[in-house]
Amino acid sequence: MSRDPLISDLIARLLDGLPEDAVLTDPDVTASYSHDMASFCPAGEPAVVVLPRTTEQVQHVMRTATELRVPVVPQGARSGLSGAANASDGCIVLSLIRMDRVLEINAVDRYAVVEPGVINADLSRAVEEKGLCYPPDPSSWEMCTIGGNIGTASGGLCCVKYGVTAEYVLGLKVVLADGRLLTTGRRTAKGVAGYDLTRLFVGSEGSLGVVVEAVLALKPKPPRQLVLAAEFGSAAAAGDAVCRIMEGGHVPSLLELMDRTTLKAVNDLARMGLPEETEALLLAAFDTADPAADLAAVGALCEAAGATQVIPADTPAESELLLKARRLSLIALEAVKGATMIDDVCVPRSRLTEMLEGVERIAAKFQLTIGVCAHAGDGNTHPTVCFDAADPEESRRARESFDEIMALGLELGGTITGEHGVGILKKEWLAREAGPVAMELQRAVKDAFDPLGLLNPGKLF
Amino acid sequence: MSRDPLISDLIARLLDGLPEDAVLTDPDVTASYSHDMASFCPAGEPAVVVLPRTTEQVQHVMRTATELRVPVVPQGARSGLSGAANASDGCIVLSLIRMDRVLEINAVDRYAVVEPGVINADLSRAVEEKGLCYPPDPSSWEMCTIGGNIGTASGGLCCVKYGVTAEYVLGLKVVLADGRLLTTGRRTAKGVAGYDLTRLFVGSEGSLGVVVEAVLALKPKPPRQLVLAAEFGSAAAAGDAVCRIMEGGHVPSLLELMDRTTLKAVNDLARMGLPEETEALLLAAFDTADPAADLAAVGALCEAAGATQVIPADTPAESELLLKARRLSLIALEAVKGATMIDDVCVPRSRLTEMLEGVERIAAKFQLTIGVCAHAGDGNTHPTVCFDAADPEESRRARESFDEIMALGLELGGTITGEHGVGILKKEWLAREAGPVAMELQRAVKDAFDPLGLLNPGKLF
Repeated sequence: MSRDPLISDLIARLLDGLPEDAVLTDPDVTASYSHDMASFCPAGEPAVVVLPRTTEQVQHVMRTATELRVPVVPQGARSGLSGAANASDGCIVLSLIRMDRVLEINAVDRYAVVEPGVINADLSRAVEEKGLCYPPDPSSWEMCTIGGNIGTASGGLCCVKYGVTAEYVLGLKVVLADGRLLTTGRRTAKGVAGYDLTRLFVGSEGSLGVVVEAVLALKPKPPRQLVLAAEFGSAAAAGDAVCRIMEGGHVPSLLELMDRTTLKAVNDLARMGLPEETEALLLAAFDTADPAADLAAVGALCEAAGATQVIPADTPAESELLLKARRLSLIALEAVKGATMIDDVCVPRSRLTEMLEGVERIAAKFQLTIGVCAHAGDGNTHPTVCFDAADPEESRRARESFDEIMALGLELGGTITGEHGVGILKKEWLAREAGPVAMELQRAVKDAFDPLGLLNPGKLF
Repeated sequence: MSRDPLISDLIARLLDGLPEDAVLTDPDVTASYSHDMASFCPAGEPAVVVLPRTTEQVQHVMRTATELRVPVVPQGARSGLSGAANASDGCIVLSLIRMDRVLEINAVDRYAVVEPGVINADLSRAVEEKGLCYPPDPSSWEMCTIGGNIGTASGGLCCVKYGVTAEYVLGLKVVLADGRLLTTGRRTAKGVAGYDLTRLFVGSEGSLGVVVEAVLALKPKPPRQLVLAAEFGSAAAAGDAVCRIMEGGHVPSLLELMDRTTLKAVNDLARMGLPEETEALLLAAFDTADPAADLAAVGALCEAAGATQVIPADTPAESELLLKARRLSLIALEAVKGATMIDDVCVPRSRLTEMLEGVERIAAKFQLTIGVCAHAGDGNTHPTVCFDAADPEESRRARESFDEIMALGLELGGTITGEHGVGILKKEWLAREAGPVAMELQRAVKDAFDPLGLLNPGKLF
């Protein structure tokens, strides 16, 4: 099959500045780079996939793209859940996974300098060896990249104590749409010189520039956490416990919730013997100097809120076992019907009960299984709609229930996305949450950074 | 004296939407609003000072300014140290100090909603009553406003543990240059919907919009801190102690340094009996569950680094006494020669010793008294140049030494401003630190938000 001459020209020009093994053109191969892990998000056919190893190579790609006016879709591990990494037709997919070096770990200044393709878990282990900790821990941490984490401003389990990715990005090197290299931020603990361009890139989903290096803040490695599990007879009682814990001034290192649907799904998958008659299971952890004392205090608050059983772990091993169920939640829910849509609506934690009860109503209305696990301490819920993707009618109901969940989140004073980002999946909803004035400014910012609109077009707005 | 008809028209139009007592026109009065606390920063004569009480009134001011193309300089308490609040000739000074209500304090969701004119200390005390804490604590906390803190992205003593103002701003209401109202961010713990416009406003020195409401994150109130003082025979030994403390994984609630010049100045002012032969005094504090244990560990590290004496406080009262000297530092240095230029260069903490020794060399070279106090745990130094403002030759040397200190900071991998901002004082230095690509983008962002260039012109760049 003869190739489109425009694409042939594009590939020839890319090869001027990239080694052959960094340019993939076989459609069977490039197709495998066309989408991330989101459901219901259209994905186009990339013209070519490039896998640069250096900043100069990324600059060459962007210069070529600008000259030829070809859109570019930056990618990490494609573990995202909003379609932000999905290809558009005829684009260059710019995968950063080969730029995977940890360049520096500094224990005195508590920072690491990394390339974007470093796997989150690899960085976490590397800094741990030096007595340090990189807290952001998305569920996909064993596969997702730091560049992807920055692009989606991702969260995780430990955010309730340690905050999200955005709080750990001190400075960036970014290749702009036209190939110029921008340096933002700093390696110092503080710095307020000019507008905070660093933070603007965090969560921008590759639409403003391509991150090629990041300076990340580190924390001292905390003591190992101990976990407590508390069972509740209703979502309201579990929500009440969360409020009591946070109002009481406690600072858990995680505070997670699983509803009955999720518990059942995990049992079905892994035969863990979880209490399926329980309406909600709360997991609280502390990595303080005396975690047992904190667990005792929190256990008492759970009982006051109506917990039917409180099980504190005595050892880190027991704690890991309790957490295992939580970590399996999404996989287990996926096994229910083969496909899921994972929402990540975040509400003020005082509205958590209303959110949980509302999702139950929505599941009943649409006759769907919707399991909820949640970073309850942050009010960040993951209502996970289980559906059969081969059944168009059920798929339609899934999509509709998903939208209704976002509407509920906004009604409760929340946001449509706590940690997964907007991508393609929540585009119309971003406009609804942000309103016309903010959207006009968001677009103006995009124009300022990428006047030709080549970077990840069709995402965010 | 008859008034310029253009100014008369401006005032008449302002009075269409503002009560009479909110519009000040007497030149003797308006002149007192012409500048903040920075030295060497030109200040113009405002045409008028307005003191709105409501968002609608601020919108009226901005709409009027846009119609008549009059520049607007937003102001808080004018305690800033970079000239960012200085008037330009013929401008409207827009003082937010009458918008001083705390609108909500929420203990479950750990946030406060405030107007921009709320005094930092008033908010701190209001949330403390509810068992909460608003950590950012600039030295001027008893007088500075939250709006000013947001505008300058200000820091303080507790940043080493709790971070800077930027980390506490969850959402904003902002009146844009043309009078439209923008809402950014959220009230939830997490949220990643679209570009982070909230963070863009933090540190923007009133050049992108006028903050009229802020949602601020709160922390649980920590236990009262205990302080330790350690005396050192050299700056290098104190710098070494800072590195050992941070490398050792400690998380002090403050880690401050005063050099010999500062100690002497404080003694001269307040007769505190501080050890003047000491080259550097380090103050470390912990607000943990067992601060005495942390102080013992840190005391041992100070001794290992060569401390000549280590004095742990046994009580909060003793701790406050030790901190009093630090709090008096800037006032004491001002008393030396009548005027000061306070720098706020921040370097990686591993370069702190080089910074301290470099400042000493610069002081000798310019034959000036330059005292250094520092948020040592953050590497954020305040070299404070003492000079006689009535002596033009000494003033010139002061300005030159100040510039040389910033050059040294950049050389050491630092930033020209850790917490005071750019304003007028450090404009040329921002360009030097950020470089041409970043400056072009900074200007593009400014144009996107304020196309007519009416908001705080001549600041930042």
